Amino acid sequence: MANHAGRHFLQIPGPTPVPERVHNAMARSMMDHRGPAFCEFGQKLFADVKGIFKTQQPVIIFPSSGTGSWEAALTNTLSPGDHVLVMETGQFAVLWTKMAERMGLKPEVIANDWRSGADANALEARLRADSSQQIKAVCVVQNETSTGARTHIDEIRKAMDAAGHSALLMVDTISSLAAMDYRHDEWGVDITISGSQKGLMLPPGLSFTAVSQKALAASKKATLARAYFSWDDMLAINGSGTFPYTPPIGLLFGLAETITMLNEEGLSNVFARHERLAEATRRAVKAWGLEVWCQDARAYSPVVTAVEMPEGHNSDAFRKIVLENFNMSLGTGLSKLAGKAFRIAHLGYTNELTIMGALAGVEMGLELARVPHNKGGVSAAMAYLAQAASPATAQAA
Amino acid sequence: MANHAGRHFLQIPGPTPVPERVHNAMARSMMDHRGPAFCEFGQKLFADVKGIFKTQQPVIIFPSSGTGSWEAALTNTLSPGDHVLVMETGQFAVLWTKMAERMGLKPEVIANDWRSGADANALEARLRADSSQQIKAVCVVQNETSTGARTHIDEIRKAMDAAGHSALLMVDTISSLAAMDYRHDEWGVDITISGSQKGLMLPPGLSFTAVSQKALAASKKATLARAYFSWDDMLAINGSGTFPYTPPIGLLFGLAETITMLNEEGLSNVFARHERLAEATRRAVKAWGLEVWCQDARAYSPVVTAVEMPEGHNSDAFRKIVLENFNMSLGTGLSKLAGKAFRIAHLGYTNELTIMGALAGVEMGLELARVPHNKGGVSAAMAYLAQAASPATAQAA
Amino acid sequence: MANHAGRHFLQIPGPTPVPERVHNAMARSMMDHRGPAFCEFGQKLFADVKGIFKTQQPVIIFPSSGTGSWEAALTNTLSPGDHVLVMETGQFAVLWTKMAERMGLKPEVIANDWRSGADANALEARLRADSSQQIKAVCVVQNETSTGARTHIDEIRKAMDAAGHSALLMVDTISSLAAMDYRHDEWGVDITISGSQKGLMLPPGLSFTAVSQKALAASKKATLARAYFSWDDMLAINGSGTFPYTPPIGLLFGLAETITMLNEEGLSNVFARHERLAEATRRAVKAWGLEVWCQDARAYSPVVTAVEMPEGHNSDAFRKIVLENFNMSLGTGLSKLAGKAFRIAHLGYTNELTIMGALAGVEMGLELARVPHNKGGVSAAMAYLAQAASPATAQAA
Amino acid sequence: MANHAGRHFLQIPGPTPVPERVHNAMARSMMDHRGPAFCEFGQKLFADVKGIFKTQQPVIIFPSSGTGSWEAALTNTLSPGDHVLVMETGQFAVLWTKMAERMGLKPEVIANDWRSGADANALEARLRADSSQQIKAVCVVQNETSTGARTHIDEIRKAMDAAGHSALLMVDTISSLAAMDYRHDEWGVDITISGSQKGLMLPPGLSFTAVSQKALAASKKATLARAYFSWDDMLAINGSGTFPYTPPIGLLFGLAETITMLNEEGLSNVFARHERLAEATRRAVKAWGLEVWCQDARAYSPVVTAVEMPEGHNSDAFRKIVLENFNMSLGTGLSKLAGKAFRIAHLGYTNELTIMGALAGVEMGLELARVPHNKGGVSAAMAYLAQAASPATAQAA
Repeated sequence: MANHAGRHFLQIPGPTPVPERVHNAMARSMMDHRGPAFCEFGQKLFADVKGIFKTQQPVIIFPSSGTGSWEAALTNTLSPGDHVLVMETGQFAVLWTKMAERMGLKPEVIANDWRSGADANALEARLRADSSQQIKAVCVVQNETSTGARTHIDEIRKAMDAAGHSALLMVDTISSLAAMDYRHDEWGVDITISGSQKGLMLPPGLSFTAVSQKALAASKKATLARAYFSWDDMLAINGSGTFPYTPPIGLLFGLAETITMLNEEGLSNVFARHERLAEATRRAVKAWGLEVWCQDARAYSPVVTAVEMPEGHNSDAFRKIVLENFNMSLGTGLSKLAGKAFRIAHLGYTNELTIMGALAGVEMGLELARVPHNKGGVSAAMAYLAQAASPATAQAA
Repeated sequence: MANHAGRHFLQIPGPTPVPERVHNAMARSMMDHRGPAFCEFGQKLFADVKGIFKTQQPVIIFPSSGTGSWEAALTNTLSPGDHVLVMETGQFAVLWTKMAERMGLKPEVIANDWRSGADANALEARLRADSSQQIKAVCVVQNETSTGARTHIDEIRKAMDAAGHSALLMVDTISSLAAMDYRHDEWGVDITISGSQKGLMLPPGLSFTAVSQKALAASKKATLARAYFSWDDMLAINGSGTFPYTPPIGLLFGLAETITMLNEEGLSNVFARHERLAEATRRAVKAWGLEVWCQDARAYSPVVTAVEMPEGHNSDAFRKIVLENFNMSLGTGLSKLAGKAFRIAHLGYTNELTIMGALAGVEMGLELARVPHNKGGVSAAMAYLAQAASPATAQAA
Repeated sequence: MANHAGRHFLQIPGPTPVPERVHNAMARSMMDHRGPAFCEFGQKLFADVKGIFKTQQPVIIFPSSGTGSWEAALTNTLSPGDHVLVMETGQFAVLWTKMAERMGLKPEVIANDWRSGADANALEARLRADSSQQIKAVCVVQNETSTGARTHIDEIRKAMDAAGHSALLMVDTISSLAAMDYRHDEWGVDITISGSQKGLMLPPGLSFTAVSQKALAASKKATLARAYFSWDDMLAINGSGTFPYTPPIGLLFGLAETITMLNEEGLSNVFARHERLAEATRRAVKAWGLEVWCQDARAYSPVVTAVEMPEGHNSDAFRKIVLENFNMSLGTGLSKLAGKAFRIAHLGYTNELTIMGALAGVEMGLELARVPHNKGGVSAAMAYLAQAASPATAQAA
Repeated sequence: MANHAGRHFLQIPGPTPVPERVHNAMARSMMDHRGPAFCEFGQKLFADVKGIFKTQQPVIIFPSSGTGSWEAALTNTLSPGDHVLVMETGQFAVLWTKMAERMGLKPEVIANDWRSGADANALEARLRADSSQQIKAVCVVQNETSTGARTHIDEIRKAMDAAGHSALLMVDTISSLAAMDYRHDEWGVDITISGSQKGLMLPPGLSFTAVSQKALAASKKATLARAYFSWDDMLAINGSGTFPYTPPIGLLFGLAETITMLNEEGLSNVFARHERLAEATRRAVKAWGLEVWCQDARAYSPVVTAVEMPEGHNSDAFRKIVLENFNMSLGTGLSKLAGKAFRIAHLGYTNELTIMGALAGVEMGLELARVPHNKGGVSAAMAYLAQAASPATAQAA
């Protein structure tokens, strides 16, 4: 029988564990979403959420999964037949492409090997070739959740600038926001898309769209149909702290609390923590003699590490053994990675000892599943984390 | 200073008070939305939710407000330029019309006086006149939340049948599901739309779409663009208990609990309770010498009662006095009713004593606001509720 | 079948409804009760709780029901065979007497009619007669929960001073603290006893003991056996924010939150609210033609109103009808009042509309139970509460 | 600055982490503790709790910390001047002695080295020597929380039987109940004492007393004063599901849930899990080259492992480093062990990966604190736990 005692280790790249402070904040009574108390709450929330995106521009909050904000990004700024350029880095970039097609757009893909981030040079070359500026939007995922590869958004911006291209820059930060550095304004992003259930440590159900003035200008001319995801209805009324339709009040109460928590820790500390846990995880993987799926060290994700399964072993069979014996969920291999990789998330409400427990579960699982590996992964991670701990507090006991 | 002591009386027609059982159910840990435990949970949930709609057909659950399911109904079954007939009964029917326009459809409206339900005879006449069957869908709201008027959906169905018209019947039950009788299959409804934050006693954030086989057939040919709200992606995967994108896990946990609660009470008891509290409310209104906004007794809503404000008095000024003195939120007058009416919800997690407290708040508020009225509304409501209580339990003490 | 829909109306004088803010505060993770975070929390809590008792002296918190603090009061300050004088005002005063006997003390009772507060004149006379100062303690209940009669503690103090008697003054504020004015220091009380589940709006499980320097001095000489309820173990360690045995952490988290809530509202506003709801309740009772059990208007309780049942009717049969038909719990008649009276609490987390709902439940219950009464109780309460609402906010709507 | 991100690892032997199911169960509304719903709940609870003690006799529940049930055990069965024999195994046994003195009893101590369980042979010898049967009670702690040593209660019983002694057997299971095997009836225990905040996974605030018929008979003759902790008041009313004073309703709701959880897992599985985690911990300790404080392998505790600190190092300085760097609380060394040992609890709501995270925190902390040790503790624990996992599920992936 499966072992379900104690707290489940949820090491998937979203949904991530919800802190009890947030559960408790969400368990408040409903209120009149048109009344003064809610409007006051909403105004503060719309202001505070900007800090997470490092923007002074509006951030729109939809009651939807993150996918909904993708749809909003496309339909609010583009018109039927518009060309969009998608930087494919894995499964989630593929989904952009499919959605663009459904919306009546003409997506073009710059593919990669799914083991690295987007190629800024290839982008620049393609944009230079688009002398008629037919491409209206460039879509890129900051952290490709399916492969554990990050793309440096500032380099994407530079490539676009170097090519002198006017396309809108649309960035998916669904699994990266509040987990790795992000700067909507400084990096000149036009539309930033995100979701609640990853770095923001909330249940799924909210999506976010930070916009630029250029994106807003585009929305005045765009002719794709939109209603639920229409920005203008939102922006017309968000200033008073409320929404054009009933807002997801419980999740918004939770959002206010997670913003408080992130600010208490400090965003830069949050990012450093994610980098630290990711490095520990990779050291374990390498000590086991396994391969980190992402092959480019500059693109290693601070959010999730995909691990390649040795030839002849199935990653889902391995995950099942881990789940049943050690009460831990690991991320499955998606699409091209199905059966070939599993993913260890080190994302959101997690810390050193949580990740050490998780890595121990992987190491023990490898043994139970008879996957060839070297011992020592957990030891390597510990050695790194001990050394990374603040030297100021290390002292003779 | 405003009086905020004790429990707030939230007497608006949604969001409605969330029972603590539901808050507690939602405060469970997140789980792997692709793992076996979630899939088992999801399969049961998709099966159980059908009972609430009285259908054997699929019920699709979107992470969105109810408005999202409206968009889904239109985009999944219709094509650009299609004609739709909207039975206008108030503000929420108007919103259907606007959305249809945005989606590139041609809505036609059968207006009414906003003080009654939809006119089945007018519908029949219009459909008979549409000999070419150009109208592809008839849209109607079961309970017009803005006016407190219900439409008898079985009569709408009969009118369509009498006219021999093939249009799809789309019904908005956002504020009526689980509060008044509804029978998706028996009444031959093609698309039923609903939301979480009313009779289902959940926070906002889920919308529902029950479909018929005819609606599913239409969706194969419909060409309006859709992605987030695409039915086919949902239906392809819901059978295994999961979703094409990250589902709103917390709200789904809550939904399972509210379905349990509704079944414990029994849907027919739930409906009778709503009818009883509504009748008590109307008796109070009439005893005060005020007008129930809805002028047709057959159309009185069991969910919400809109009350006309006497000439020369503003309903929002009155609501403010009630909020500040008695810690109660009443529904505002929307659109044409702005300033002219307030609304008392008797919906969801409420009972006799809650509604008596609410009516006392209204009666005291009328006095504080110097709105001309007769005393005796609360007494009239009590007289009715005492008489309506089970005679079996009434006995000499 | 009983009607259990919607929120239960819990109108008993404890436990009282726990605000959701408090439920949420209590749902925090356990912590190391000897660690720095808990000690910091505890130090602030021990300081803040003093404000509720209006004292600068220590307040000891026991993990126990209020009864435990009674035992602590006696065993920490008295020796076997000591005489104590109990001012009997009802059932809870009787329980003091029984406990004193069990502890090996010699209790003497000044009885009253159970329909008024303690008689300060009788006390003064008795103390004057005790020229040898044999009486070591005077025990009195500020609010007699069983009858709804208050005793003016300042008058008790004056009587003791007038008699020039040195006995310790022990006051039970279990059902009155944080609901009616109380001043441990100013009124010269030696030991104040209280509990968590009444005005403090917490679940049961904490008891409180505020002491004077005189009581502490007595505790150095007292020889009754005590261990769990020993003050000295507590006082020796409370200064560092912790406890001699494992403290009831969850309830303490809740206590911190209720103190915050009480201070947000302001204690004087809290007391005024209780007085207002009590007056409304009594006006209802009188309008029904029933008798308030307490016969002395100066002694009317702001916390609970006991209502005499007309001859030939049983109060528990009535309560059962109310519970089954209207989902409300009323207080039973205790001891001498069994079957003869029921009690309506207007205590803790309650407000105008809650009490109006409750009074409507009583009025409807009287009818269902065929208890002779006049209509108009609810109307009388409303008339009072509308008039008592802040005139500043009453205005033309 | 201290690292407080993510979930705190609370590895002290109580309070232990409260499962969210239990937090949620406790967050239910208060109810009338004399009403029918509570009485029905209470009757079931009093019946169900017996299974945890493996008894058919009454189990009394006090609103108090565990210490309160100690006091109850003594005062309900003994008279002033009675002799009691305390088997000292550590700090908690010492506290029994102090309490007995305070209560006017004559405690006699059989001391041990604080590094093993109670010596059944020494007990038998002492009892044989007490030919006049002057000793009225034998007090023993099943799991000495301060040292991590267990006593085999069945052997204690046999020793008493072998000596033909009639003393009552009183056993403290505060930190062992629901974590290691316990059989009140089968082992002939007269009074079993326990608390809520350890194996029962609740917050502190409840104590338990299981009694035998012999203990009940003794209580009829015992003359020590008792009131709050009087058994007879409890037993007189518990049969109807309620309490002589206001019960700690919230904690009781939680208790019902933890009993359900324990039964779902199965008590024998719960015990095996504790043994497994304890063995893993000891293997880590030994691999580090440190000493398990308990020197008798038969007495190793499945609940908590005390670890001796190498000469020249202070265990509290070490604990502080672990807390600040790795957000984990370890148990302090109590009394004789102060500064010399730290304790790792593997108790209650915990599992393999939690304990692996905890052991990693210790191993990293030893390095940060420059405590001499060998690497490999975590690896040794993993090796054991992987091997201990169900072989049925181990298979090729």
